[in-house]
Amino acid sequence: MKSTNITWHEGDVTRDDRARLLGQRGACVWFTGLSGSGKSTVAVALEKALLHAGRAVYRLDGDNVRHGLNANLGFSAEDRDENIRRIGEVARLFADAGLICLCSFVSPYRAARDNVRRLHEDAGLPFFEVFVDAPLDVLEQRDPKGLYRKARAGEIKNFTGLDAPFEPPAHAELVLPTHTLRVEQSVEQAAAMLRDAGVIDA
Amino acid sequence: MKSTNITWHEGDVTRDDRARLLGQRGACVWFTGLSGSGKSTVAVALEKALLHAGRAVYRLDGDNVRHGLNANLGFSAEDRDENIRRIGEVARLFADAGLICLCSFVSPYRAARDNVRRLHEDAGLPFFEVFVDAPLDVLEQRDPKGLYRKARAGEIKNFTGLDAPFEPPAHAELVLPTHTLRVEQSVEQAAAMLRDAGVIDA
Repeated sequence: MKSTNITWHEGDVTRDDRARLLGQRGACVWFTGLSGSGKSTVAVALEKALLHAGRAVYRLDGDNVRHGLNANLGFSAEDRDENIRRIGEVARLFADAGLICLCSFVSPYRAARDNVRRLHEDAGLPFFEVFVDAPLDVLEQRDPKGLYRKARAGEIKNFTGLDAPFEPPAHAELVLPTHTLRVEQSVEQAAAMLRDAGVIDA
Repeated sequence: MKSTNITWHEGDVTRDDRARLLGQRGACVWFTGLSGSGKSTVAVALEKALLHAGRAVYRLDGDNVRHGLNANLGFSAEDRDENIRRIGEVARLFADAGLICLCSFVSPYRAARDNVRRLHEDAGLPFFEVFVDAPLDVLEQRDPKGLYRKARAGEIKNFTGLDAPFEPPAHAELVLPTHTLRVEQSVEQAAAMLRDAGVIDA
């Protein structure tokens, strides 16, 4: 058998060991906001910027969760809660692994988001709620996917912001009024938040 | 606002970009075997060795999954399948994130393990099934937690290897007869497997 450069180490891996070896601490950044507000646009750009700065980062969103882990969930109130619960648990595993986990989900209910926050805080892992706060009338005017128009026409039921509630965060770590910011500015503000909290280096 | 060392990059992050920036490719190593066979012992030691070699790695096991993501699952046949399905989906997310994800679960059913393999292969992510293969009589003699004794006494029902089946892998990438190997040797063989497959550097 060939050599593997694998050496032997006594004792368990602590979170501090992991942080030292990876050169970073894990954290969860949770983007919440109405459909079309720019959650994923900001998350994608932040992921890219962090990766290029040498940070280990991963993004959870509808695309990689709804078709996989949560493929067996529908859109009942119970299933929506379970959807957010599972995502929160996975985000916690990523943060425990030492990664910066970016989650972008409408997640309209405060209680569900607060549960995810508590999950992280109980585990001693930093949690950042980012409220992507663009006004409904701006989003309805843009409406690149025509979702608001369909919802207004009654073709989509229980659409958040129209006939289903969005409960804005009471104590978000960051509010991004994306209708007044360029994406670069939102990314810069989110990165500054992570730097000020000691998650990434200055 | 202070500077953040965050720079702007056009285009999406591809898996190749991620691999280049992290300096490694993601993969899933799935340890299967009877209770007490040494799956977690080997996985813990491999995790530590890889971390100390500068690799980003994370371990999923009963401790961090059963109390969190899968806390709402019991031990019916259906729930056991869903347990392994969810773990497989989470492992795939970790591998997609570029991490080496070590999973240690009895996972007695071949079909469930093959589903997890397919999930990874369909996503173009390396999957390694490691059969931790210690004979039942050796495990019953050791039995440090007294589980086999309790199962023989009928105090635990449906115990894998006794009154519930274990379906050994048909095509495991690695078989570790842990009753004849020191932990260091098992770790060395698993690391060699990853190196030979190009997941970690020589």
